[in-house]
Amino acid sequence: MTPEEFRRRGHEIIDWLADYHAKMSDYPVQPATQPGDVKAMLPASPPIEAEGFGEIIADLDSVVLPNISHWQHPRFFGYFPSNSLGSGILGDLVSSGLGVLGLSWQSSPAVTEIEEVTVDWFRQMVGLSSAWFGVINDTASTSTLVALLCAREKTTGFSLVRQGLQAELKPLTIYTSASAHSSVEKAALLAGFGRENVRMVDIDDSFAMRPRALEDAILADIRAGFKPCAIVAAVGGTATVSIDPVSEIAAIARRHGLWLHIDAAMAGNAMILPELRWMWEGVEDADSVVINAHKWLGVPFDCSLYFVRDEPHLLRVMSADPSFLQSQADEKVRNLRNTGIPLGRRFRALKLWFAIREQGVSGLQARLRRDISLAQDLRSKVEATPGWEVVAPVALQTVCIVNRPKSVPSHRLDDFTRAWAHAVNASGQAYVTPATAAGHWMVRVSIGAISTEASDIEAVWHTIQEAAAAVVPKFS
Amino acid sequence: MTPEEFRRRGHEIIDWLADYHAKMSDYPVQPATQPGDVKAMLPASPPIEAEGFGEIIADLDSVVLPNISHWQHPRFFGYFPSNSLGSGILGDLVSSGLGVLGLSWQSSPAVTEIEEVTVDWFRQMVGLSSAWFGVINDTASTSTLVALLCAREKTTGFSLVRQGLQAELKPLTIYTSASAHSSVEKAALLAGFGRENVRMVDIDDSFAMRPRALEDAILADIRAGFKPCAIVAAVGGTATVSIDPVSEIAAIARRHGLWLHIDAAMAGNAMILPELRWMWEGVEDADSVVINAHKWLGVPFDCSLYFVRDEPHLLRVMSADPSFLQSQADEKVRNLRNTGIPLGRRFRALKLWFAIREQGVSGLQARLRRDISLAQDLRSKVEATPGWEVVAPVALQTVCIVNRPKSVPSHRLDDFTRAWAHAVNASGQAYVTPATAAGHWMVRVSIGAISTEASDIEAVWHTIQEAAAAVVPKFS
Repeated sequence: MTPEEFRRRGHEIIDWLADYHAKMSDYPVQPATQPGDVKAMLPASPPIEAEGFGEIIADLDSVVLPNISHWQHPRFFGYFPSNSLGSGILGDLVSSGLGVLGLSWQSSPAVTEIEEVTVDWFRQMVGLSSAWFGVINDTASTSTLVALLCAREKTTGFSLVRQGLQAELKPLTIYTSASAHSSVEKAALLAGFGRENVRMVDIDDSFAMRPRALEDAILADIRAGFKPCAIVAAVGGTATVSIDPVSEIAAIARRHGLWLHIDAAMAGNAMILPELRWMWEGVEDADSVVINAHKWLGVPFDCSLYFVRDEPHLLRVMSADPSFLQSQADEKVRNLRNTGIPLGRRFRALKLWFAIREQGVSGLQARLRRDISLAQDLRSKVEATPGWEVVAPVALQTVCIVNRPKSVPSHRLDDFTRAWAHAVNASGQAYVTPATAAGHWMVRVSIGAISTEASDIEAVWHTIQEAAAAVVPKFS
Repeated sequence: MTPEEFRRRGHEIIDWLADYHAKMSDYPVQPATQPGDVKAMLPASPPIEAEGFGEIIADLDSVVLPNISHWQHPRFFGYFPSNSLGSGILGDLVSSGLGVLGLSWQSSPAVTEIEEVTVDWFRQMVGLSSAWFGVINDTASTSTLVALLCAREKTTGFSLVRQGLQAELKPLTIYTSASAHSSVEKAALLAGFGRENVRMVDIDDSFAMRPRALEDAILADIRAGFKPCAIVAAVGGTATVSIDPVSEIAAIARRHGLWLHIDAAMAGNAMILPELRWMWEGVEDADSVVINAHKWLGVPFDCSLYFVRDEPHLLRVMSADPSFLQSQADEKVRNLRNTGIPLGRRFRALKLWFAIREQGVSGLQARLRRDISLAQDLRSKVEATPGWEVVAPVALQTVCIVNRPKSVPSHRLDDFTRAWAHAVNASGQAYVTPATAAGHWMVRVSIGAISTEASDIEAVWHTIQEAAAAVVPKFS
């Protein structure tokens, strides 16, 4: 493809995407795709000869669009938002189009330095002190794994340069809660701690970790011959956006010498609102924090910001400096490969840089406040409706609801809840996520698409009530 | 940004990229940037109010372009290629523009199924049997880490559901060589094995692992009370593209029950050429293979293909199935989150799909054969020139060279080599990578930019000779 062909086809793709976004709300949010439908449309073997680019573009309409859930749809309320600002999409296009890699500072200086600057902007935006150093990873799963690796190496005095975890006399233990993201336990398992050494600390009625239970667990482990290593606290638990009490947990971590990692993957974005920073009061006493700018802030996936207080420790755990990556500049620069798992690094900072500048901090703040307000509107509607209940505090933009019609017996409530959530999604009118909290199913309405407006909240609430009413007879 | 603004600005960015690619060869391959130059051009704090998008685009010319190394430049010969076909760039743009995530099949069915199909196309292209299952990761560093995690769990009978590595009675050991990529040792350290349990097996004159030395090391470890766990063999070692003897190594792995991971990150792409498949003869007896389609094949970074023979084992090691990710389709589909570290997955298959279709297998083969032929041309030129030497077999597209002028004493040769490599890069005429092989510095000329032609090989060879001649007096 010559530059002129790229220009022509690029304009076609841009037009196609602009049209897609303009008519987004016409699509069913979730497709009717059945397993295997897409595979059946594609050849089983690769084409030997080149296909025309027109055929490829045509398949976007025939193969791709009918078979995706539309995450940018104004009535997409699933999971957590992964919303994409147009400016962020174009920043990512520049990254792909330049095709430069940050293996080292030397390998493309602007990749490193624009990341350093924009991540520091983000640090300031969320009110972290200048004691923190941050980098961009792909996802919070990766950031949390890096955090637990750093914790492991701190507790063991750098066992990785010796026998690894294989010669530690006391088993290391990790503390988190049932409100934490599944990636926390996964990270602990991948890092070699073992599931039997992961403690699920009790939570309270608001789904937050109980500090007293945490300290009791740590003390019991010490008595039993374990070596407590790290605590992972959630500022914005996955199911209900629960808020663990960071100050109290940090005090316990300091008292017993544990690493404290704060998983603020979604809710950390809200810390750009000064009025909400009480939510993570005490964060300055943590060791690491993850915030996904691709969740809610509007930077296209993937853009997970990982902050640590002890940069030299991070570098010592994650470094690899083979000969082919050394350069004369190494003494004077940061080589960000030594902060994460992958060696190669995309120019991810561009999309963050574009999005922050195009919106301004005030623009980003306004949109987050809009979503928080929309969530409170929905909460009010649900609470005002007989038979409906909001089952967790609405701290930010996620509303967790159940319907308890008198005719549905309590032992069938979980099945009923999942059935109406499924009916909502199958309708194509909105997309919501069922999940469990305190052992029972509820439905999360997680607000945050760029284009969501008050009318969309009206619409999803209407769809939810209709769906529940329609399935009630099956469970009565 | 409304869809119409996105359309207008998107066209501007596409035009800017097309212009950049059209005039690429006018840029110095490496910029003259000094540490801190880029940071000094940027505000220390984020903008509170929105900036005009025109200002952002203007900074691409003033801040970004003068401070990147141009990896797509026809005279970029650094590291390994990370070349980007225009069609792949546009496929990635569609991924960013759709903004859909593959958390599960359900969360966007086409994300999963197009990945399944295109990765299987790739499997067929490189001649792997249908016994292999593949997925897309970000980089080979990650794929190799996953491989060692799978090996750890196979050897320990799933210690991760118990005490992890912390209760294993015999220390597990890993086997690789000095020709392996730095990511292998890094992965072993992150996975908890410990550096003292990583064995660097001897290499031969062609920088390939010696099978006899490998088996001796395994047997010695068994006698000493260790538990040999995994071998990582290189098909295309990083420094010299050395080729470990896979068949012999696989026989040893089978004999002693070790996991065999093949790092074919760069060279694996050449397996689309049937005449070269002798290079990894025996690969069917390995347990896992990584091939980076973003290296040399032309799929924009990041696109690392990880293949395993035992899919259920991979799923068991990497799975997490919290309530909010469960769906009614789970029994009938693949949930690719359970194959890797991150939960969220970009629609990476689009760029692979676009690139394969736009080029056809024959188009991809023709370009790789072109690069191999260019490398042989350069090898001939170097070998025909007095004082110059090719220090490793030219298996594919990388030529490793040294200059030994009579006036430079042998104890100054390493410094001389690095000096002329530095001079080549500082000239802006070409970009090469110095590295060590057999304990001495040499310079790698790694061919593979999409736009590289015979005249560029002439040019880099001319630049190299001039640079070396210019610095000779300093070392004589």
